[in-house]
Amino acid sequence: MAAIFGRHPVLEALRAGRSIDRLYLAEGAKATGIVDEILRLAQASGVTVTWIDRRALDRLAEGANHQGVLAEAQEFTYATLDDVVQSAARGTAFPLLVALDALEDPQNFGTLLRSADAVGADGILIPLHRAVGVTPAVEKSSAGAVAHLPIARVTNLSRALVTLKESGYWIVGLDHTGPELYDRFPVDSPLVLVVGAEGKGLGRLVRESCDLLVRLPMRGHVESLNAAVAGSIVLYDILRRRSVSDERPAPEDPSSAQARRTR
Amino acid sequence: MAAIFGRHPVLEALRAGRSIDRLYLAEGAKATGIVDEILRLAQASGVTVTWIDRRALDRLAEGANHQGVLAEAQEFTYATLDDVVQSAARGTAFPLLVALDALEDPQNFGTLLRSADAVGADGILIPLHRAVGVTPAVEKSSAGAVAHLPIARVTNLSRALVTLKESGYWIVGLDHTGPELYDRFPVDSPLVLVVGAEGKGLGRLVRESCDLLVRLPMRGHVESLNAAVAGSIVLYDILRRRSVSDERPAPEDPSSAQARRTR
Repeated sequence: MAAIFGRHPVLEALRAGRSIDRLYLAEGAKATGIVDEILRLAQASGVTVTWIDRRALDRLAEGANHQGVLAEAQEFTYATLDDVVQSAARGTAFPLLVALDALEDPQNFGTLLRSADAVGADGILIPLHRAVGVTPAVEKSSAGAVAHLPIARVTNLSRALVTLKESGYWIVGLDHTGPELYDRFPVDSPLVLVVGAEGKGLGRLVRESCDLLVRLPMRGHVESLNAAVAGSIVLYDILRRRSVSDERPAPEDPSSAQARRTR
Repeated sequence: MAAIFGRHPVLEALRAGRSIDRLYLAEGAKATGIVDEILRLAQASGVTVTWIDRRALDRLAEGANHQGVLAEAQEFTYATLDDVVQSAARGTAFPLLVALDALEDPQNFGTLLRSADAVGADGILIPLHRAVGVTPAVEKSSAGAVAHLPIARVTNLSRALVTLKESGYWIVGLDHTGPELYDRFPVDSPLVLVVGAEGKGLGRLVRESCDLLVRLPMRGHVESLNAAVAGSIVLYDILRRRSVSDERPAPEDPSSAQARRTR
């Protein structure tokens, strides 16, 4: 547990998506300007806000200049890309990773982590910038999945995908312009499923790093699905098709993805 | 558009899940007691709140005793069960309905409506009591799907399911105790997919009204999926399997569900 004091440090911690257990505000502090912004971000992230006596706050801050604001933050421990790849390789011949390109909604992020855990995915990649990190709201929506899935935050998602491609992963992007349907691409290789941001979809560089773009059929009036729902549908279809092939006597060789790419 | 005035009427309208476009509060009104509760519910439902001059509020209320609170409400027009069944029968030999047993989270409800529209479902059933209705937050999460799907609010969901069963529908409940997997039950008949509330699952009577309970495989640590995600996965699998059977020369007879039930 780490205490963060002062208006700007707490504001930046909230903006950076640091996991905050509890926010203390001095009784009588005015909810204007920065404090108002802190409150708004805290509420949006589901952080518990407690108004306490200024002298109690002095004690919590151990005499530091808290400016009426103190946050109890917990460090979420992110994995490295190497950690994710190595732990995935230990589990199965055909690991399954999920890369989330700039999801901004904590509930969507958490919901997708929950589904990823449910299908037995081996790890998650998220970009360091312009995306929500593992906040308390994400942990809550994930129903505890964050404790079980290694999550790597990478500075450059498309470069990470290229690295994974070189290690034998097949990179499948979910995109409404995808030429193939989501239930037809080969699943008998190590896979990364790449899910785009709400509304915006996949970024250009990330899209170009994919081996294949797949789409979900849309038979109604809405133009797209919720991002967490779309990703979950494809994850379950991968699980379904891999389970079917488990029932067959001889699965394809894991190096087939590499072979397919170079054909 | 209907204007609702006064603290208690507006509070009750919000509690009942009436669709409210905008909430006006008199400048200087204290956010305590009922007004505080109104604000809380309005924010939870995504209602825009505008603080205006008391005299402007007098004009909006046309002289009525508004007590500093006025809501502009829109009536969402629910369909009847008959409407849903009749319009479904016109569209296809194998209609697909979705029944939501007491969903409480507006975002989950809206997200599931969005998926239902995306797979071309024919209509929705929700219970009148103990469930969220079509609120502005639901409309927002549905990405506009509410404008396209007939939604019937029924006083007794299990009785409605029995009625549908008698009209030839096969009733499939999604439940983590289900004996069959979600991708194995027959889809070549009129179907109702029944999705349970967050956390609680299907109610006892609703569960007993189902012909079949199906489950999603869980390969990780979390015990369940988000309700909207779970429902969407099964909806897409129904669409997938029906599309596969479209590619076959001769689909089964629509009366097969009835036959299957009596076997």
